[in-house]
Amino acid sequence: MARKLVVKRGRKAGSEPGTLIHIGSPRAQPPSIRVIEYDQHDMADRLIDTAGDYEVRQRGQVTWLNVDGVHQADVIEAVGQAFNLHPLVMEDILNVDQRPKVEDYDGYLYLVLRILRYDAASQEIQSEQVSLVLGEHFVLSLQEVKSEIFDAVRNRLRDGRQIRCMPADYLAYALLDAVVDQYFLALEELSEQIETLEDQLIENPQPANLRQIHHYKREMLILRKAVWPLREVLGRLSRDESPLISAETRVFLRDVYDHTIHVMDTIDTLRELLVGLLDLYLSSINNRMNEVMKVLTIIATLFMPLTFIAGVYGMNFELMPELEWRWGYPAVMALMLLISGSLLYSFRRRGWI
Amino acid sequence: MARKLVVKRGRKAGSEPGTLIHIGSPRAQPPSIRVIEYDQHDMADRLIDTAGDYEVRQRGQVTWLNVDGVHQADVIEAVGQAFNLHPLVMEDILNVDQRPKVEDYDGYLYLVLRILRYDAASQEIQSEQVSLVLGEHFVLSLQEVKSEIFDAVRNRLRDGRQIRCMPADYLAYALLDAVVDQYFLALEELSEQIETLEDQLIENPQPANLRQIHHYKREMLILRKAVWPLREVLGRLSRDESPLISAETRVFLRDVYDHTIHVMDTIDTLRELLVGLLDLYLSSINNRMNEVMKVLTIIATLFMPLTFIAGVYGMNFELMPELEWRWGYPAVMALMLLISGSLLYSFRRRGWI
Amino acid sequence: MARKLVVKRGRKAGSEPGTLIHIGSPRAQPPSIRVIEYDQHDMADRLIDTAGDYEVRQRGQVTWLNVDGVHQADVIEAVGQAFNLHPLVMEDILNVDQRPKVEDYDGYLYLVLRILRYDAASQEIQSEQVSLVLGEHFVLSLQEVKSEIFDAVRNRLRDGRQIRCMPADYLAYALLDAVVDQYFLALEELSEQIETLEDQLIENPQPANLRQIHHYKREMLILRKAVWPLREVLGRLSRDESPLISAETRVFLRDVYDHTIHVMDTIDTLRELLVGLLDLYLSSINNRMNEVMKVLTIIATLFMPLTFIAGVYGMNFELMPELEWRWGYPAVMALMLLISGSLLYSFRRRGWI
Amino acid sequence: MARKLVVKRGRKAGSEPGTLIHIGSPRAQPPSIRVIEYDQHDMADRLIDTAGDYEVRQRGQVTWLNVDGVHQADVIEAVGQAFNLHPLVMEDILNVDQRPKVEDYDGYLYLVLRILRYDAASQEIQSEQVSLVLGEHFVLSLQEVKSEIFDAVRNRLRDGRQIRCMPADYLAYALLDAVVDQYFLALEELSEQIETLEDQLIENPQPANLRQIHHYKREMLILRKAVWPLREVLGRLSRDESPLISAETRVFLRDVYDHTIHVMDTIDTLRELLVGLLDLYLSSINNRMNEVMKVLTIIATLFMPLTFIAGVYGMNFELMPELEWRWGYPAVMALMLLISGSLLYSFRRRGWI
Amino acid sequence: MARKLVVKRGRKAGSEPGTLIHIGSPRAQPPSIRVIEYDQHDMADRLIDTAGDYEVRQRGQVTWLNVDGVHQADVIEAVGQAFNLHPLVMEDILNVDQRPKVEDYDGYLYLVLRILRYDAASQEIQSEQVSLVLGEHFVLSLQEVKSEIFDAVRNRLRDGRQIRCMPADYLAYALLDAVVDQYFLALEELSEQIETLEDQLIENPQPANLRQIHHYKREMLILRKAVWPLREVLGRLSRDESPLISAETRVFLRDVYDHTIHVMDTIDTLRELLVGLLDLYLSSINNRMNEVMKVLTIIATLFMPLTFIAGVYGMNFELMPELEWRWGYPAVMALMLLISGSLLYSFRRRGWI
Repeated sequence: MARKLVVKRGRKAGSEPGTLIHIGSPRAQPPSIRVIEYDQHDMADRLIDTAGDYEVRQRGQVTWLNVDGVHQADVIEAVGQAFNLHPLVMEDILNVDQRPKVEDYDGYLYLVLRILRYDAASQEIQSEQVSLVLGEHFVLSLQEVKSEIFDAVRNRLRDGRQIRCMPADYLAYALLDAVVDQYFLALEELSEQIETLEDQLIENPQPANLRQIHHYKREMLILRKAVWPLREVLGRLSRDESPLISAETRVFLRDVYDHTIHVMDTIDTLRELLVGLLDLYLSSINNRMNEVMKVLTIIATLFMPLTFIAGVYGMNFELMPELEWRWGYPAVMALMLLISGSLLYSFRRRGWI
Repeated sequence: MARKLVVKRGRKAGSEPGTLIHIGSPRAQPPSIRVIEYDQHDMADRLIDTAGDYEVRQRGQVTWLNVDGVHQADVIEAVGQAFNLHPLVMEDILNVDQRPKVEDYDGYLYLVLRILRYDAASQEIQSEQVSLVLGEHFVLSLQEVKSEIFDAVRNRLRDGRQIRCMPADYLAYALLDAVVDQYFLALEELSEQIETLEDQLIENPQPANLRQIHHYKREMLILRKAVWPLREVLGRLSRDESPLISAETRVFLRDVYDHTIHVMDTIDTLRELLVGLLDLYLSSINNRMNEVMKVLTIIATLFMPLTFIAGVYGMNFELMPELEWRWGYPAVMALMLLISGSLLYSFRRRGWI
Repeated sequence: MARKLVVKRGRKAGSEPGTLIHIGSPRAQPPSIRVIEYDQHDMADRLIDTAGDYEVRQRGQVTWLNVDGVHQADVIEAVGQAFNLHPLVMEDILNVDQRPKVEDYDGYLYLVLRILRYDAASQEIQSEQVSLVLGEHFVLSLQEVKSEIFDAVRNRLRDGRQIRCMPADYLAYALLDAVVDQYFLALEELSEQIETLEDQLIENPQPANLRQIHHYKREMLILRKAVWPLREVLGRLSRDESPLISAETRVFLRDVYDHTIHVMDTIDTLRELLVGLLDLYLSSINNRMNEVMKVLTIIATLFMPLTFIAGVYGMNFELMPELEWRWGYPAVMALMLLISGSLLYSFRRRGWI
Repeated sequence: MARKLVVKRGRKAGSEPGTLIHIGSPRAQPPSIRVIEYDQHDMADRLIDTAGDYEVRQRGQVTWLNVDGVHQADVIEAVGQAFNLHPLVMEDILNVDQRPKVEDYDGYLYLVLRILRYDAASQEIQSEQVSLVLGEHFVLSLQEVKSEIFDAVRNRLRDGRQIRCMPADYLAYALLDAVVDQYFLALEELSEQIETLEDQLIENPQPANLRQIHHYKREMLILRKAVWPLREVLGRLSRDESPLISAETRVFLRDVYDHTIHVMDTIDTLRELLVGLLDLYLSSINNRMNEVMKVLTIIATLFMPLTFIAGVYGMNFELMPELEWRWGYPAVMALMLLISGSLLYSFRRRGWI
Repeated sequence: MARKLVVKRGRKAGSEPGTLIHIGSPRAQPPSIRVIEYDQHDMADRLIDTAGDYEVRQRGQVTWLNVDGVHQADVIEAVGQAFNLHPLVMEDILNVDQRPKVEDYDGYLYLVLRILRYDAASQEIQSEQVSLVLGEHFVLSLQEVKSEIFDAVRNRLRDGRQIRCMPADYLAYALLDAVVDQYFLALEELSEQIETLEDQLIENPQPANLRQIHHYKREMLILRKAVWPLREVLGRLSRDESPLISAETRVFLRDVYDHTIHVMDTIDTLRELLVGLLDLYLSSINNRMNEVMKVLTIIATLFMPLTFIAGVYGMNFELMPELEWRWGYPAVMALMLLISGSLLYSFRRRGWI
């Protein structure tokens, strides 16, 4: 099982804050930087080599700079210098093991989010970090790996719809919304499987189910750890009076906030369901043990007295009058029948058979 | 078992917010729209074909527009345009998998509620969404399916009682009250059954009871998920200073709020009771296992020594003096009686029999 | 077992709020109305037939009107009209299945309390509703059945003590205090019994104890449901700045509040103790099972090898040289002794005997 | 076991508030009253017979009046009148079954505290009530029984140290500090024993441990009930702006508050540890049961087939060719060896032996 | 196991607050005092013998005085006098069994922190106290033993980096950050081991695992007790408006606060995982017991009837016609085969074999 619960502190202990070292699995592919600039009438979409090349065109357009792959510290540093980011922000972008949070800096908001994906092969939740920086006229989004999660937003921009008429905060909302939407997909997958497991447990519990329950409980722990702080983040965004977020966008953020609450509720419900499933499993095991013990007890109670009687008449005493009786053998057999009959009757009365 | 815990995110991931797609089981019946307009003196009740036909008659009357069936996006869109609703509201009306909430829009309040019904056939709680929109002179109510839940309110309007003299917010209260009343019916049914289960468990626990306990715990989870956020919704409505709700109506809303708290309390109490029932069941199983084991042990302890003695005198050694004794056989039988007698006595002293 | 957890919603679903229907067990006895009017110098105590007869004598005296039996809607309606109560208040008085609460109306406070009594016969907590209405110069108290709970207050009034010099809010305090005092009696009874059960469980746990633990847990649930909201009620009364309650009385209300907290603490402590008792019971059962299994294993381990050896020499082979040996029989018996001796020794070393 | 969880309500139900009746075990010894008056230069220490004799010497000195034994209502009443205490305060002093609390009266603060002592003989926590009254120039301390808990404070006063230069609130702090210090002693004793129990459980769990775990859990419940409200009391004292407590003393109170939090933390940690110990105990019992069952199963599986074979050749059929074979007997014995060998091998492969 | 949960109250009960006695394991090494003074241009680093020698050079430089070893009361007293510390602060520095806290004194902040180290040898978390005092131009750090935890900070100072240009509060932040970084290392170690244990439990649970689970749960309790209050401390530091902390440093403190939350989250997640592991272990034990019981029952059910039949034909009745039949023996053997065959078939049908 993947070591997902190991926590890692980014920077080497004791080093300068703002030291830029990438923390996470090393990756081969070079990061790609894509810049989209748009207003109601116009939109430009291009790949640039390094953020140093990027020139802020302050002509009232919204700039969306997206970086896929944050494993090269120099690339991130160039972005940070271009947009004048605090060293701690750059450090957090590189350290992809952060907890979701929102931080208020001078002139921009910094958000850490986590993308969750259900990986069907390993049946595990995969978690990746996305950093968003929202300035007055720009949004930066920095992801661990290239993913198609923001493709739909790009398409909406290209189609020149409503989103093109809105300021940068609306773009940030659209990206947030895309991230939270992923949670619904992951949860849908998981809850589907948990309910299948439930049916199986009710019909015919198996020892393997125990491991499955444990596995899902673990995934829920990971999910919860990612979603719980997000709730706080979105609550703050939709309530607080940051000048970077307009009242109009705030209505939309409230909607994403509601979705997060909905996700949290479902996670908690599933967690409680899993606790119930464990109870169900353990009780079934107990029930079965009971059944096995009853069979054993019935067999032993039936045959032990009979075997004893047979043993008695197998003794070799010279003087055992019954042995010489004409009806001795049938009488003993009748006695045995009587005993087993009355035992069976008493078992039935106790409801054992 | 129905897949009730699967969470669904309305809109297709990444699509424009306010995209109107119905999320829920598809339904054949066309939606029906019913408009009731009333003041103290007058009341009109009619079915209209499409909300486009509807003309707001601003003559101081209260308008109640009820839609049964929200599965046709165009119908909802027409209603939304007639009453100037925000795209997100329309989206939420169509997506019938929402969490209860209240949202403050310019000029109106939007409420999502859930109707809960106990379905005797499947012994499950059925959950449906109702959307309420409260404006200054109108109330919109939009339900998933046609139901008789608001019939009593219609009758009170027709009978020209108190409700006809009150503004729109009182009508909204009446509808809320009708929804919460349903919860009492569902809970009454459920608690009745849980207490019956309790009696059964105390008298004679059965393996089937385990599944029942699990079933009721699950239903409680679903109930709780629907009622918990409602508590918050009603708390806000009865406290906050929305201009749409008069002080007079606020007193009535406080009453519905109290009912919700009462429902929550009862759900929590029933949940704790169910936990207690599971403990009771498991302990009974353990007790029974104990009984079975005692029977087995008594039988084995009684007959194993006796069978052994019989076995000894069944050995074929040529020189076994006891075998030739005149009183050998009776002596052995007496010995066996003695052993079994003293074993029985020791069992009784331990309280096993 | 009584169906105490079934929740009932007063008014018929969908009917007008303020519809006056009594919800509760029907009762034969007519309600009795008693009016006490007093000031420092004077006190009048009389029974009246109907509240319609009652005439508010506004001469600076305090009026205490007590109704025993709230099952006749017309009686309550007359009281309500005489004192100008809100329809929702009258409805709540009649519906004796309410949660403790305090509500602020124009000119008066409405309180719902629950009297708890431990019924020794059924070993159950009996719960009844008392409604209190506190106006500037009057207190109404409305109980389900005639009870002697307020007798002590009446005696103090009659004896012309301190209470006669105080305004109406002090009378309300005295009634509240009398209600909370009942809780101490009920708890004292229950905790006494639970601790007796604890002693029994430590000395000699019995299957019947399981049912007792469950019974007490259930009673605690009911107690908690009644006391928990009361804590909130009294907290508000002793903190809030209602003009109906003087600073002087507030000091006394704080005292009742402390008592309620004390009751809550004790309930929670007893609940935790009961959880501990269940653990103790289950562990004892497990211990006993262990003992039983050990006995069985010892017996089987002792006699199975011996019986096998006896069986071997009971075989009828023609050529079994041992059978003809002179010391064959004693040698086998010695072997058996040796085997059982060494088995017993190994049992002792394992601490089984 | 002592009935420590029984809650008692002081005053007889329904009686006047401020009725002075001592609630607690009756005691023979008469109460002793000791008055210490001091300022920086001077200190007088004397025993007086009755508080009526006491004359407040308002010459800027601090007065500390300590009563050992609160079981005589008249003594307390005299104190109360001398210092002008509210009737409810006097009632609470006499009723030694109170919850820790602080109450703000006109001109003085009233504190209820509980002294906890670990009694080595009964291995139980003993709990006694101390009432403190802090006025501008005086401190009253009223204890259930004579104890040496405040001796150290008296010594510091006598030695003329720092405490002599401080106002009355610092004396109250010193007494509070002495009370909380006792908790550390009790907890140290208890935690020492619980950790010894833990070692024992890990090495060799015994049925007696179960009762010990239950016993400590119970003591923790009692401790928690006494300390939890104290935390609130000290939190309020060190935060609130009572004119009776100087900013300088508040720093010291914050220190006592920290100690209380530390005590609470340790209680909670020990409680969780005890839950862990119960799990450990139960799991060990289960492990042992498993061992016992394995022994039984191995024995039965080994000897049942062998005994059966011996039984077969003990049958008395006239025509059983094997019986007459020359190598019949050794062949059967070899067969038996083979069977038991292969069974033992399969047990080993399963890891049972 | 080390007695880590025993709580100790510093000062001897009843003694003067501010009495300076070292509470903790006695240590042989003398304390070493190291003073670093720096500003942007200059830095001096020297060891001094006693704080009495220390002379505050108020030339705008930042002074960092570090004491390794707090077991000599006179050394601490000298430091306290040199920096004018409150007696309670000096007492707390000496008593190395404190809970993390922050206290606001006139002119300086006093912080208690705990360093946590995972000791690989004993597999236990080691906890030591560090006291920090932050004044306007100085930082005091006082540790129990000499450790290299602050070496990295010293190196950064020596290298003349950013930290040299910042005021004293930034130095305090750097020390705090170094302390919290240690937690990540300890947690990483622990979570690595817990996940290894998890794998082991899923593959092949052993009785020894039970003790390991208990051990890690215990370590988690200790971790939690140290980290939980720290969260509060850092929350206050990064929120409150202390004049000693600049807005610039507050941003960095928020970062440490985030790390603490992250640590807390991980501790809670690991705790829940450990609960899950215990469930997994117990269920596996139950599963195995079930397997053992099945084997026993199958063996007994197979051989008891067969042995009985053999016993019957081993009886010595003179008249047992079957014994003389030619095909008697083969017929009985065939009967036995039939019986065991049908039993085996029924076992297979039940899924037991």
